[in-house]
Amino acid sequence: MSLDPIERLVLELGRLPGIGERSATRMAFHIIRQSQGRDSGSLARDLAAALLAVADEVGFCSQCRNLCRGERCKVCADASRDQGLLCVVESVVDLKAIEATKTYRGLYHVLHGALAPLDGIGPDELKIDALVTRVTERGYREVILATNADVEGDATALYLARLIKPLGVQVTRLASGIPSGGELEYLDHATLGRALTERREY
Amino acid sequence: MSLDPIERLVLELGRLPGIGERSATRMAFHIIRQSQGRDSGSLARDLAAALLAVADEVGFCSQCRNLCRGERCKVCADASRDQGLLCVVESVVDLKAIEATKTYRGLYHVLHGALAPLDGIGPDELKIDALVTRVTERGYREVILATNADVEGDATALYLARLIKPLGVQVTRLASGIPSGGELEYLDHATLGRALTERREY
Repeated sequence: MSLDPIERLVLELGRLPGIGERSATRMAFHIIRQSQGRDSGSLARDLAAALLAVADEVGFCSQCRNLCRGERCKVCADASRDQGLLCVVESVVDLKAIEATKTYRGLYHVLHGALAPLDGIGPDELKIDALVTRVTERGYREVILATNADVEGDATALYLARLIKPLGVQVTRLASGIPSGGELEYLDHATLGRALTERREY
Repeated sequence: MSLDPIERLVLELGRLPGIGERSATRMAFHIIRQSQGRDSGSLARDLAAALLAVADEVGFCSQCRNLCRGERCKVCADASRDQGLLCVVESVVDLKAIEATKTYRGLYHVLHGALAPLDGIGPDELKIDALVTRVTERGYREVILATNADVEGDATALYLARLIKPLGVQVTRLASGIPSGGELEYLDHATLGRALTERREY
Protein backbone atom coordinates (compact mmCIF):
# COMPACT_ATOMS: atom_id res chain seq x y z
CA MET A 1 0.00 0.00 0.00
CA SER A 2 1.33 3.39 -0.91
CA LEU A 3 -0.87 5.20 1.62
CA ASP A 4 0.78 7.36 4.25
CA PRO A 5 1.08 5.25 7.45
CA ILE A 6 -0.93 7.74 9.50
CA GLU A 7 -3.75 7.90 6.94
CA ARG A 8 -3.72 4.12 6.76
CA LEU A 9 -4.00 3.83 10.56
CA VAL A 10 -6.91 6.31 10.58
CA LEU A 11 -8.61 4.23 7.88
CA GLU A 12 -8.18 0.97 9.79
CA LEU A 13 -9.31 2.49 13.11
CA GLY A 14 -12.38 3.78 11.28
CA ARG A 15 -13.42 0.16 10.70
CA LEU A 16 -14.01 -0.27 14.45
CA PRO A 17 -17.66 -0.06 15.54
CA GLY A 18 -18.79 3.40 16.63
CA ILE A 19 -15.60 5.08 15.40
CA GLY A 20 -15.94 7.81 12.78
CA GLU A 21 -13.15 9.63 10.97
CA ARG A 22 -12.79 12.27 13.67
CA SER A 23 -12.44 9.75 16.53
CA ALA A 24 -10.13 7.63 14.40
CA THR A 25 -7.88 10.64 13.78
CA ARG A 26 -7.81 11.53 17.49
CA MET A 27 -6.99 7.92 18.33
CA ALA A 28 -4.24 7.73 15.70
CA PHE A 29 -2.49 10.82 17.06
CA HIS A 30 -2.89 9.54 20.63
CA ILE A 31 -1.35 6.22 19.59
CA ILE A 32 1.56 8.00 17.87
CA ARG A 33 2.16 10.21 20.90
CA GLN A 34 2.12 7.15 23.19
CA SER A 35 4.48 5.24 20.93
CA GLN A 36 7.44 7.59 20.58
CA GLY A 37 10.90 6.57 21.69
CA ARG A 38 10.13 3.78 24.13
CA ASP A 39 9.96 0.24 22.85
CA SER A 40 8.19 -1.34 25.79
CA GLY A 41 4.98 0.44 26.67
CA SER A 42 4.57 1.62 23.09
CA LEU A 43 0.80 1.67 22.61
CA ALA A 44 1.09 0.91 18.87
CA ARG A 45 3.28 -2.18 19.46
CA ASP A 46 1.31 -3.47 22.45
CA LEU A 47 -2.00 -3.12 20.63
CA ALA A 48 -0.58 -4.73 17.48
CA ALA A 49 0.73 -7.68 19.51
CA ALA A 50 -2.65 -8.13 21.21
CA LEU A 51 -4.42 -8.05 17.83
CA LEU A 52 -2.08 -10.62 16.30
CA ALA A 53 -2.42 -12.88 19.35
CA VAL A 54 -6.20 -12.80 18.94
CA ALA A 55 -5.95 -13.44 15.19
CA ASP A 56 -3.56 -16.34 15.75
CA GLU A 57 -4.97 -17.98 18.86
CA VAL A 58 -8.69 -17.28 19.11
CA GLY A 59 -11.14 -19.36 17.11
CA PHE A 60 -14.61 -20.83 17.43
CA CYS A 61 -15.36 -23.85 19.63
CA SER A 62 -16.11 -26.74 17.27
CA GLN A 63 -19.18 -27.67 19.29
CA CYS A 64 -20.93 -24.46 20.40
CA ARG A 65 -19.14 -21.71 18.40
CA ASN A 66 -18.18 -19.86 21.59
CA LEU A 67 -14.77 -18.17 21.31
CA CYS A 68 -11.85 -20.25 22.56
CA ARG A 69 -8.16 -20.92 22.12
CA GLY A 70 -8.16 -24.65 21.40
CA GLU A 71 -10.64 -27.05 19.86
CA ARG A 72 -13.23 -26.74 22.64
CA CYS A 73 -14.32 -23.84 24.83
CA LYS A 74 -14.21 -23.91 28.64
CA VAL A 75 -17.94 -24.55 28.95
CA CYS A 76 -18.00 -27.50 26.55
CA ALA A 77 -14.86 -28.96 28.14
CA ASP A 78 -16.41 -28.80 31.64
CA ALA A 79 -17.94 -32.24 32.31
CA SER A 80 -19.67 -30.96 35.46
CA ARG A 81 -22.09 -28.84 33.40
CA ASP A 82 -25.61 -30.13 32.82
CA GLN A 83 -25.28 -31.97 29.48
CA GLY A 84 -29.05 -32.10 28.94
CA LEU A 85 -29.64 -28.36 28.81
CA LEU A 86 -28.80 -26.13 25.83
CA CYS A 87 -29.05 -22.34 25.79
CA VAL A 88 -29.05 -20.64 22.36
CA VAL A 89 -27.67 -17.07 22.38
CA GLU A 90 -27.05 -14.49 19.67
CA SER A 91 -23.53 -13.55 20.70
CA VAL A 92 -20.61 -14.30 22.96
CA VAL A 93 -21.36 -11.17 24.98
CA ASP A 94 -24.80 -12.62 25.75
CA LEU A 95 -23.19 -15.91 26.82
CA LYS A 96 -20.92 -13.98 29.18
CA ALA A 97 -23.91 -12.05 30.58
CA ILE A 98 -25.75 -15.29 31.35
CA GLU A 99 -22.63 -16.84 32.90
CA ALA A 100 -22.31 -13.76 35.11
CA THR A 101 -25.74 -14.46 36.66
CA LYS A 102 -24.38 -17.79 38.00
CA THR A 103 -27.87 -19.30 37.66
CA TYR A 104 -27.27 -21.45 34.59
CA ARG A 105 -25.17 -24.63 34.52
CA GLY A 106 -26.00 -26.10 31.09
CA LEU A 107 -24.33 -25.79 27.68
CA TYR A 108 -24.54 -23.03 25.07
CA HIS A 109 -24.86 -22.53 21.35
CA VAL A 110 -23.77 -19.19 19.86
CA LEU A 111 -25.50 -18.07 16.63
CA HIS A 112 -23.29 -15.00 16.04
CA GLY A 113 -26.24 -12.93 14.95
CA ALA A 114 -30.01 -13.01 14.55
CA LEU A 115 -32.15 -13.52 11.46
CA ALA A 116 -32.34 -10.25 9.54
CA PRO A 117 -33.36 -10.94 5.94
CA LEU A 118 -33.07 -7.27 4.94
CA ASP A 119 -29.39 -7.32 5.99
CA GLY A 120 -28.83 -10.59 4.18
CA ILE A 121 -28.61 -12.67 7.36
CA GLY A 122 -30.56 -15.88 6.88
CA PRO A 123 -30.44 -19.40 8.38
CA ASP A 124 -27.25 -20.20 6.40
CA GLU A 125 -25.29 -17.26 7.84
CA LEU A 126 -26.22 -18.35 11.38
CA LYS A 127 -25.36 -21.98 10.58
CA ILE A 128 -28.73 -23.10 11.94
CA ASP A 129 -28.30 -26.50 10.22
CA ALA A 130 -25.41 -27.24 12.57
CA LEU A 131 -27.57 -26.36 15.59
CA VAL A 132 -30.39 -28.63 14.45
CA THR A 133 -27.92 -31.47 13.81
CA ARG A 134 -26.42 -30.93 17.27
CA VAL A 135 -29.85 -31.02 18.95
CA THR A 136 -30.84 -34.13 16.97
CA GLU A 137 -27.65 -36.01 17.81
CA ARG A 138 -27.28 -35.05 21.46
CA GLY A 139 -30.87 -35.40 22.58
CA TYR A 140 -31.06 -32.46 25.01
CA ARG A 141 -34.08 -32.48 27.30
CA GLU A 142 -34.53 -28.70 26.97
CA VAL A 143 -33.42 -25.96 24.56
CA ILE A 144 -33.64 -22.41 25.96
CA LEU A 145 -33.99 -19.72 23.29
CA ALA A 146 -32.14 -16.77 24.83
CA THR A 147 -32.11 -14.43 21.83
CA ASN A 148 -32.73 -10.73 22.42
CA ALA A 149 -36.28 -9.49 23.10
CA ASP A 150 -36.26 -7.33 19.95
CA VAL A 151 -37.84 -7.94 16.53
CA GLU A 152 -34.89 -9.92 15.12
CA GLY A 153 -34.40 -11.91 18.33
CA ASP A 154 -38.10 -12.81 18.55
CA ALA A 155 -38.19 -13.83 14.88
CA THR A 156 -35.09 -15.99 15.32
CA ALA A 157 -36.58 -17.67 18.41
CA LEU A 158 -39.84 -18.36 16.57
CA TYR A 159 -37.95 -19.82 13.60
CA LEU A 160 -35.80 -22.04 15.84
CA ALA A 161 -38.81 -23.21 17.91
CA ARG A 162 -40.55 -24.41 14.73
CA LEU A 163 -37.47 -26.43 13.75
CA ILE A 164 -36.62 -27.87 17.17
CA LYS A 165 -40.03 -28.63 18.72
CA PRO A 166 -40.79 -31.37 16.13
CA LEU A 167 -37.63 -33.15 17.33
CA GLY A 168 -39.44 -33.88 20.61
CA VAL A 169 -37.33 -31.49 22.70
CA GLN A 170 -38.81 -29.06 25.23
CA VAL A 171 -38.25 -25.55 23.87
CA THR A 172 -38.39 -22.53 26.21
CA ARG A 173 -37.89 -18.79 25.85
CA LEU A 174 -36.51 -16.29 28.40
CA ALA A 175 -39.31 -14.57 30.33
CA SER A 176 -40.32 -11.08 29.19
CA GLY A 177 -41.64 -8.52 31.63
CA ILE A 178 -40.80 -5.78 34.09
CA PRO A 179 -37.07 -5.61 34.84
CA SER A 180 -35.96 -5.96 38.47
CA GLY A 181 -36.45 -2.64 40.28
CA GLY A 182 -38.57 -1.33 37.42
CA GLU A 183 -41.30 1.21 38.17
CA LEU A 184 -44.51 0.89 36.16
CA GLU A 185 -44.72 4.65 35.67
CA TYR A 186 -41.49 4.78 33.67
CA LEU A 187 -41.83 1.58 31.62
CA ASP A 188 -42.37 1.73 27.89
CA HIS A 189 -45.76 0.55 26.55
CA ALA A 190 -44.34 -2.56 24.87
CA THR A 191 -42.71 -3.89 28.05
CA LEU A 192 -45.72 -3.16 30.27
CA GLY A 193 -48.08 -4.62 27.67
CA ARG A 194 -46.06 -7.79 27.43
CA ALA A 195 -45.82 -8.06 31.22
CA LEU A 196 -49.62 -7.87 31.37
CA THR A 197 -50.21 -10.40 28.61
CA GLU A 198 -47.73 -12.84 30.08
CA ARG A 199 -48.86 -12.36 33.72
CA ARG A 200 -48.56 -15.44 35.88
CA GLU A 201 -50.48 -17.06 38.77
CA TYR A 202 -49.32 -15.66 42.12
CA MET B 1 1.91 -12.53 29.41
CA SER B 2 -0.39 -15.25 30.69
CA LEU B 3 -3.54 -13.20 30.11
CA ASP B 4 -6.22 -14.61 27.86
CA PRO B 5 -5.75 -13.04 24.39
CA ILE B 6 -9.26 -11.58 24.37
CA GLU B 7 -8.85 -9.99 27.81
CA ARG B 8 -5.50 -8.64 26.73
CA LEU B 9 -7.01 -7.08 23.59
CA VAL B 10 -9.80 -5.49 25.67
CA LEU B 11 -7.15 -4.09 28.02
CA GLU B 12 -5.08 -2.61 25.19
CA LEU B 13 -8.13 -1.15 23.40
CA GLY B 14 -9.10 0.45 26.73
CA ARG B 15 -5.91 2.54 26.51
CA LEU B 16 -7.34 4.43 23.51
CA PRO B 17 -8.79 7.86 24.28
CA GLY B 18 -12.54 7.87 25.00
CA ILE B 19 -12.76 4.07 25.12
CA GLY B 20 -14.02 2.50 28.34
CA GLU B 21 -14.20 -1.19 29.19
CA ARG B 22 -17.62 -1.64 27.60
CA SER B 23 -16.65 -0.09 24.26
CA ALA B 24 -13.34 -1.98 24.32
CA THR B 25 -15.19 -5.26 24.80
CA ARG B 26 -17.62 -4.49 21.98
CA MET B 27 -14.67 -3.56 19.73
CA ALA B 28 -12.75 -6.70 20.64
CA PHE B 29 -15.66 -8.98 19.71
CA HIS B 30 -16.22 -7.02 16.51
CA ILE B 31 -12.55 -7.43 15.62
CA ILE B 32 -12.70 -11.16 16.32
CA ARG B 33 -15.84 -11.55 14.22
CA GLN B 34 -14.20 -9.62 11.36
CA SER B 35 -11.03 -11.69 11.57
CA GLN B 36 -12.26 -15.25 11.31
CA GLY B 37 -11.15 -17.50 8.50
CA ARG B 38 -9.96 -15.00 5.94
CA ASP B 39 -6.33 -13.95 5.98
CA SER B 40 -6.64 -10.90 3.77
CA GLY B 41 -9.28 -8.50 5.02
CA SER B 42 -8.84 -9.71 8.59
CA LEU B 43 -9.48 -6.61 10.68
CA ALA B 44 -7.09 -7.75 13.42
CA ARG B 45 -4.19 -8.30 10.99
CA ASP B 46 -4.85 -5.14 8.96
CA LEU B 47 -5.05 -2.98 12.06
CA ALA B 48 -1.94 -4.61 13.55
CA ALA B 49 -0.01 -3.99 10.33
CA ALA B 50 -1.11 -0.33 10.28
CA LEU B 51 -0.05 0.10 13.92
CA LEU B 52 3.36 -1.44 13.33
CA ALA B 53 3.89 0.69 10.21
CA VAL B 54 3.19 3.80 12.27
CA ALA B 55 5.48 2.62 15.09
CA ASP B 56 8.27 1.83 12.64
CA GLU B 57 8.02 4.67 10.16
CA VAL B 58 6.49 7.71 11.83
CA GLY B 59 8.64 10.00 13.95
CA PHE B 60 9.00 13.68 14.78
CA CYS B 61 10.44 16.18 12.32
CA SER B 62 13.84 17.20 13.71
CA GLN B 63 13.08 20.86 13.08
CA CYS B 64 9.41 21.50 13.95
CA ARG B 65 8.31 18.26 15.71
CA ASN B 66 5.50 17.73 13.21
CA LEU B 67 4.93 14.03 12.43
CA CYS B 68 6.81 12.68 9.44
CA ARG B 69 8.39 9.60 7.93
CA GLY B 70 11.95 10.82 7.33
CA GLU B 71 14.16 13.38 9.01
CA ARG B 72 12.09 16.39 7.93
CA CYS B 73 8.36 16.93 7.49
CA LYS B 74 6.74 18.05 4.24
CA VAL B 75 6.31 21.64 5.43
CA CYS B 76 9.94 22.05 6.53
CA ALA B 77 11.19 20.39 3.34
CA ASP B 78 9.17 22.78 1.15
CA ALA B 79 11.50 25.63 0.19
CA SER B 80 8.60 27.64 -1.29
CA ARG B 81 7.13 28.27 2.20
CA ASP B 82 7.75 31.65 3.83
CA GLN B 83 10.90 30.99 5.91
CA GLY B 84 10.44 34.15 7.98
CA LEU B 85 7.10 33.20 9.54
CA LEU B 86 6.71 30.67 12.38
CA CYS B 87 3.38 29.44 13.73
CA VAL B 88 3.44 27.70 17.14
CA VAL B 89 0.63 25.15 17.65
CA GLU B 90 -0.26 22.77 20.46
CA SER B 91 -0.75 19.67 18.32
CA VAL B 92 -0.46 18.14 14.88
CA VAL B 93 -4.26 18.26 14.53
CA ASP B 94 -4.10 22.04 14.95
CA LEU B 95 -1.38 22.22 12.29
CA LYS B 96 -3.61 20.26 9.92
CA ALA B 97 -6.56 22.56 10.70
CA ILE B 98 -4.49 25.65 9.85
CA GLU B 99 -3.16 24.02 6.67
CA ALA B 100 -6.76 23.26 5.65
CA THR B 101 -7.59 27.00 5.68
CA LYS B 102 -4.99 27.52 2.89
CA THR B 103 -4.32 31.01 4.25
CA TYR B 104 -0.93 30.33 5.85
CA ARG B 105 2.30 29.69 3.96
CA GLY B 106 4.94 29.90 6.72
CA LEU B 107 6.56 27.25 8.94
CA TYR B 108 5.29 25.56 12.10
CA HIS B 109 6.45 24.46 15.51
CA VAL B 110 4.45 21.78 17.33
CA LEU B 111 4.55 21.84 21.16
CA HIS B 112 2.64 18.55 21.64
CA GLY B 113 0.66 19.97 24.52
CA ALA B 114 0.10 23.15 26.53
CA LEU B 115 1.43 24.24 29.90
CA ALA B 116 -0.59 22.53 32.64
CA PRO B 117 1.40 22.58 35.88
CA LEU B 118 -1.28 20.61 37.77
CA ASP B 119 -0.90 17.75 35.25
CA GLY B 120 2.87 17.94 35.49
CA ILE B 121 3.30 19.53 32.06
CA GLY B 122 5.88 22.31 32.30
CA PRO B 123 8.29 24.01 29.86
CA ASP B 124 10.57 20.93 29.85
CA GLU B 125 7.82 18.56 28.70
CA LEU B 126 6.97 20.90 25.80
CA LYS B 127 10.69 21.30 24.94
CA ILE B 128 10.30 25.08 24.95
CA ASP B 129 14.09 25.45 25.11
CA ALA B 130 14.33 23.96 21.62
CA LEU B 131 11.73 26.45 20.34
CA VAL B 132 13.61 29.42 21.83
CA THR B 133 16.89 28.14 20.35
CA ARG B 134 15.21 27.73 16.95
CA VAL B 135 13.79 31.28 17.06
CA THR B 136 17.16 32.70 18.16
CA GLU B 137 19.11 30.91 15.43
CA ARG B 138 16.72 31.37 12.51
CA GLY B 139 15.78 35.00 13.09
CA TYR B 140 12.08 34.79 12.08
CA ARG B 141 10.40 38.13 11.49
CA GLU B 142 7.17 37.00 13.17
CA VAL B 143 6.11 34.23 15.55
CA ILE B 144 2.36 33.51 15.60
CA LEU B 145 1.14 31.93 18.83
CA ALA B 146 -1.70 29.67 17.66
CA THR B 147 -2.37 27.81 20.91
CA ASN B 148 -5.99 27.15 21.87
CA ALA B 149 -8.15 29.96 23.27
CA ASP B 150 -8.61 28.13 26.60
CA VAL B 151 -6.88 28.65 29.96
CA GLU B 152 -3.89 26.39 29.20
CA GLY B 153 -3.50 27.73 25.67
CA ASP B 154 -3.63 31.36 26.84
CA ALA B 155 -1.13 30.67 29.63
CA THR B 156 1.22 28.93 27.19
CA ALA B 157 0.98 31.85 24.74
CA LEU B 158 1.68 34.36 27.52
CA TYR B 159 4.70 32.33 28.69
CA LEU B 160 6.09 32.03 25.16
CA ALA B 161 5.52 35.73 24.40
CA ARG B 162 7.59 36.70 27.46
CA LEU B 163 10.46 34.49 26.25
CA ILE B 164 10.36 35.37 22.55
CA LYS B 165 9.60 39.12 22.52
CA PRO B 166 12.97 40.01 24.17
CA LEU B 167 14.67 38.32 21.18
CA GLY B 168 13.44 41.20 19.03
CA VAL B 169 10.90 39.14 17.09
CA GLN B 170 7.35 40.31 16.42
CA VAL B 171 5.00 38.05 18.41
CA THR B 172 1.31 37.76 17.47
CA ARG B 173 -1.66 35.77 18.73
CA LEU B 174 -4.68 34.44 16.78
CA ALA B 175 -7.63 36.83 16.96
CA SER B 176 -10.36 36.01 19.49
CA GLY B 177 -13.96 36.96 18.83
CA ILE B 178 -17.24 35.98 17.26
CA PRO B 179 -16.91 32.90 15.04
CA SER B 180 -18.00 33.20 11.40
CA GLY B 181 -21.78 32.96 11.15
CA GLY B 182 -22.09 33.41 14.94
CA GLU B 183 -25.24 35.04 16.31
CA LEU B 184 -24.75 37.32 19.31
CA GLU B 185 -27.84 35.92 21.04
CA TYR B 186 -26.38 32.43 21.30
CA LEU B 187 -22.74 33.29 22.13
CA ASP B 188 -21.34 32.48 25.56
CA HIS B 189 -20.45 35.46 27.79
CA ALA B 190 -16.69 34.85 27.56
CA THR B 191 -16.60 34.96 23.76
CA LEU B 192 -18.86 38.01 23.49
CA GLY B 193 -16.94 39.79 26.26
CA ARG B 194 -13.63 39.15 24.52
CA ALA B 195 -15.05 40.25 21.16
CA LEU B 196 -16.09 43.54 22.81
CA THR B 197 -12.78 44.12 24.57
CA GLU B 198 -10.79 43.36 21.45
CA ARG B 199 -13.05 45.31 19.06
CA ARG B 200 -11.26 46.89 16.13
CA GLU B 201 -11.53 50.05 14.05
CA TYR B 202 -13.99 49.60 11.16
